Amino acid sequence: MKIAIDAMGGDNAPKEIIEGVKQALEAFSDVEILLYGQQDKIDEYIKPQDRLTIIHCTEVIESEDDPVRSVRRKKDASMVRMAEAVKEGTADAAVSAGNTGALMSAGLFIVGRIDGVDRPALAPTLPTMDGKGFLMLDLGANADAKPEHLVQYAIMGSIYAEKVRGVQNPTVGLLNIGTEEKKGNELTKAAFPLLKEAPVNFIGNVESRDLLNGAADVVVTDGFTGNMVLKTIEGTAMNVFAMIKDVFMASTKTKIAAMLVKNDLSALKGMLDYSEYGGAGLFGLKAPVIKAHGSSNGTAFYNAIRQARTMVEHDVAGKIYSTLKEEQSS
Amino acid sequence: MKIAIDAMGGDNAPKEIIEGVKQALEAFSDVEILLYGQQDKIDEYIKPQDRLTIIHCTEVIESEDDPVRSVRRKKDASMVRMAEAVKEGTADAAVSAGNTGALMSAGLFIVGRIDGVDRPALAPTLPTMDGKGFLMLDLGANADAKPEHLVQYAIMGSIYAEKVRGVQNPTVGLLNIGTEEKKGNELTKAAFPLLKEAPVNFIGNVESRDLLNGAADVVVTDGFTGNMVLKTIEGTAMNVFAMIKDVFMASTKTKIAAMLVKNDLSALKGMLDYSEYGGAGLFGLKAPVIKAHGSSNGTAFYNAIRQARTMVEHDVAGKIYSTLKEEQSS
Repeated sequence: MKIAIDAMGGDNAPKEIIEGVKQALEAFSDVEILLYGQQDKIDEYIKPQDRLTIIHCTEVIESEDDPVRSVRRKKDASMVRMAEAVKEGTADAAVSAGNTGALMSAGLFIVGRIDGVDRPALAPTLPTMDGKGFLMLDLGANADAKPEHLVQYAIMGSIYAEKVRGVQNPTVGLLNIGTEEKKGNELTKAAFPLLKEAPVNFIGNVESRDLLNGAADVVVTDGFTGNMVLKTIEGTAMNVFAMIKDVFMASTKTKIAAMLVKNDLSALKGMLDYSEYGGAGLFGLKAPVIKAHGSSNGTAFYNAIRQARTMVEHDVAGKIYSTLKEEQSS
Repeated sequence: MKIAIDAMGGDNAPKEIIEGVKQALEAFSDVEILLYGQQDKIDEYIKPQDRLTIIHCTEVIESEDDPVRSVRRKKDASMVRMAEAVKEGTADAAVSAGNTGALMSAGLFIVGRIDGVDRPALAPTLPTMDGKGFLMLDLGANADAKPEHLVQYAIMGSIYAEKVRGVQNPTVGLLNIGTEEKKGNELTKAAFPLLKEAPVNFIGNVESRDLLNGAADVVVTDGFTGNMVLKTIEGTAMNVFAMIKDVFMASTKTKIAAMLVKNDLSALKGMLDYSEYGGAGLFGLKAPVIKAHGSSNGTAFYNAIRQARTMVEHDVAGKIYSTLKEEQSS
């Protein structure tokens, strides 16, 4: 299979992107990489070789660029060319660590939605205390959602959890402010009965405070709420660690304690750093498009490529299309 | 002034409620307490005395009761009688640690809204890292809100922050998923320009991850989002502390470290336990109604009484009425 890569996106481009590409070429003999970006900058780190084609692009979408406008105007940007390769069928999937909004625009306007999907959703896998992790969507592809969109998120998330994450009969929870069926705002109250009827293993409402404990394998919510909750978890965890650091630095006694647990606490902090946790799939597009984190290092970017490969291998997009078609004709 | 108290609400009623009443009677010579509840249970802890009247009620609203139905049907419940005392002008304010939903119903249907306020809001003061704290509303009195409701929340919150918390020209932030003006969902995008025109010190969007750092003195949001964010902060902080405890219990080395920092970390945890943090005002009612936490001990309940007293003293309800009237006629 062929995977198109945007070499110019993210804080560590192109160095770490190329490091990830090298790891992927070594790990997967069935993967061919199409690398889009500025030739001279790429040349510093890698040369064309077996299963690697470098395609020179004159433009780059920057992190501060307007998502929609940049995708429309920068026709020779590496991210745009990468998305076009998928659209034309030259590549089977795409991976970028660049501007999230622009990648969503490129996905929506260039790669295109699966028939039957009203809105794509940004769906990262997030950590839980037991290390299993869970999928949450939408994390901000669309701020507002209608009840039927949440049903589509549930279906797309379930397929991904089963096919890519290997979870049998994944549980689906509706993110809400209480567990009772009648709780919530207009959106969640309207979505609840629809989810009960949907072809997913719906287990009811789940509360944000239970997310880290693994409340469900797939958690659905509108993009505004999802993004808000994600940032709240991140912010709270980082603040708590900052406060703990202050406690440890307070006296000689606490400094000794700090030395004794330093490594263990660092590991814990890393686990809770959501920004470091894998790539996020853009679900509902005709082909897999993966958003790797802007701060990805080589290994993180390799993982994003691996994720794209698994989605192609299991034909996640095709399965979403057929399930939604069945659901909508029933 | 006279303050009506529901002796039967909360996990520790009536013992800790009465303990709070005793503290208030001692601290404030201008306060007279009307204590509503089951005479025989109250008798165990306190007797009628100067500035304390006990009013026997035959019913109690339980924490699992339906909020609206229980207030309508249990006409002799301590919470209902307390709210009626405020409505009839027998008392100037009310305080209960009971069923939050029922207290909101009692406030709305018995005490009644201030003319000009469409929806009351639940507004607790939450902690920040620097100990100053901030006011956030709505935390769940109404799950859905319209843009103009957020403006009313901003006005009510500003008056409270200034009059009760003593913050000069309090800053008001709109809780959002990004700081730029155009960010957010339909609600926040529509509320932003209205808040710019409102008679408050609006400083723009604030993100949930900055709340603990004191992003604004007053943060406005719809009840669904507010409740979600509050529970996420609580859940994340408690999970992180649980994980840290595991780290400390892992080996002899880490157990020694634990002994050295135990007290400091406990203090930190207490500071972040939002459920322990003061009472929440129900803003927009004709008289102050304070929701003390269900788990309130005597001191926490005393603080809720003190909060009610300060709101009466500074005529917060009257100030909200006159400001909204001015705003709506301009």
